[in-house]
Amino acid sequence: MMKTPGKIWLIGAGPGDVELLTLKAVRALGEAQVWLVDDLVNPEIAQFALPGTRIIGVGKRGGCRSTPQGFINRLMARYARQGQVVARIKGGDAMLFGRGGEEVAYLQERGLSVEVVNGLTSGLVGATRAGIPLTHRDYTRGVTFVTAHAQDHSEPDWAALAATGTTLVIYMGMSRLSSIQAGLRAAGLPAEMPAAVIERAASPDERVLVTSLGLLAREAQLGGYASPAVIVVGEVVALATVREAELRRCWARCA
Amino acid sequence: MMKTPGKIWLIGAGPGDVELLTLKAVRALGEAQVWLVDDLVNPEIAQFALPGTRIIGVGKRGGCRSTPQGFINRLMARYARQGQVVARIKGGDAMLFGRGGEEVAYLQERGLSVEVVNGLTSGLVGATRAGIPLTHRDYTRGVTFVTAHAQDHSEPDWAALAATGTTLVIYMGMSRLSSIQAGLRAAGLPAEMPAAVIERAASPDERVLVTSLGLLAREAQLGGYASPAVIVVGEVVALATVREAELRRCWARCA
Repeated sequence: MMKTPGKIWLIGAGPGDVELLTLKAVRALGEAQVWLVDDLVNPEIAQFALPGTRIIGVGKRGGCRSTPQGFINRLMARYARQGQVVARIKGGDAMLFGRGGEEVAYLQERGLSVEVVNGLTSGLVGATRAGIPLTHRDYTRGVTFVTAHAQDHSEPDWAALAATGTTLVIYMGMSRLSSIQAGLRAAGLPAEMPAAVIERAASPDERVLVTSLGLLAREAQLGGYASPAVIVVGEVVALATVREAELRRCWARCA
Repeated sequence: MMKTPGKIWLIGAGPGDVELLTLKAVRALGEAQVWLVDDLVNPEIAQFALPGTRIIGVGKRGGCRSTPQGFINRLMARYARQGQVVARIKGGDAMLFGRGGEEVAYLQERGLSVEVVNGLTSGLVGATRAGIPLTHRDYTRGVTFVTAHAQDHSEPDWAALAATGTTLVIYMGMSRLSSIQAGLRAAGLPAEMPAAVIERAASPDERVLVTSLGLLAREAQLGGYASPAVIVVGEVVALATVREAELRRCWARCA
């Protein structure tokens, strides 16, 4: 006999701090019998689980323990077909570079019920915590969130992005900092253009580097900045109020 | 005798549904003795107020009852200097077209303590609810959030924005739909480019129009779409799963 199919909640947990979860996310987490959790999600989220919840880590970051997307998809579908409520939990937001659209399509094609709960994205939260107002109207018309990592390993069109005059928030760029810097300089952005790196936004070990485009790759390397991190480039970065940033900028100049 | 200054929480309440508040926002709301609330915030948020909280509406939308920014700034500072905890509450996120950066600067210049709590922005939530994955990697490298309304009444650089190939999410554009459509067409985007309008995202009277760039202004006018709404333009809009959208698209073709 077929069971009544369950449901999949596709939940953006926000970056770092579990207090950045929405009320709706907490409700969904509390309804689920099975959790499929990405690497970047704060483990403290477990406080919102029902007793007896099955919590499965399905991180996809580099290294040998990553879980293929197809396997995650099948896992979601299998538990839902067993009549279970599944929480698929991602860091940040599932629809901003989170492959949420692909997972939704996979599930809907199989007639399974899926509902997305948006989460705060690390670029917005990280910038805000560093005192960077991404769209301050004295400086820009808007903000562009872009991934440096594409399926076909191509580079973003830095010339077009720079020409918009929007603040740029770059995801998955830490292994490509030199080419990002070179691409944006070649696109005409000056070496003095303020730039920042926010590593592990809103987590206890968050770090912020405020520098300039011309020094971006060098300073990030000197400071050992690495993924997960977002890169912010634009005039608004000059408004950053992070104290460590001042120290690092000074230090880099004296080095 | 001077009172110990209080604190200002600058809170993004998200769009529409109060369940989209973060846990941190709810905590901050519950600590405040004075609330300064923008027009677009769902009144149901009052359930999170301390008993006796002073709740003051400070909407800034058009018409005769809008409150000047300078007055809001002074109000925040005055209550904080009286030793009160102030919640300044905005729809969506305070740092994405919310003038949050300006309010933070005003308060910090006066030595007052201010902390921002990010909220979900209507462009992301509205698109997600309509089934539009803003950054689906098969279609785009990213997403640009831009305001059609500038201090100097200039137009955004549509040519540069179109050239990025990012999904465009346009805020404050409903009174300028014809010029947005013309600007993006002149920038080379085809009339067939999918486009959507999401009105009052995540509120009970949310409406979604899915159409094409060539029909955008006409269909929005026919359907009576108006502010507050976001406009989404890009290939990813073709993935929209909204049923009403299908009906409207069909209807427009037959009209």
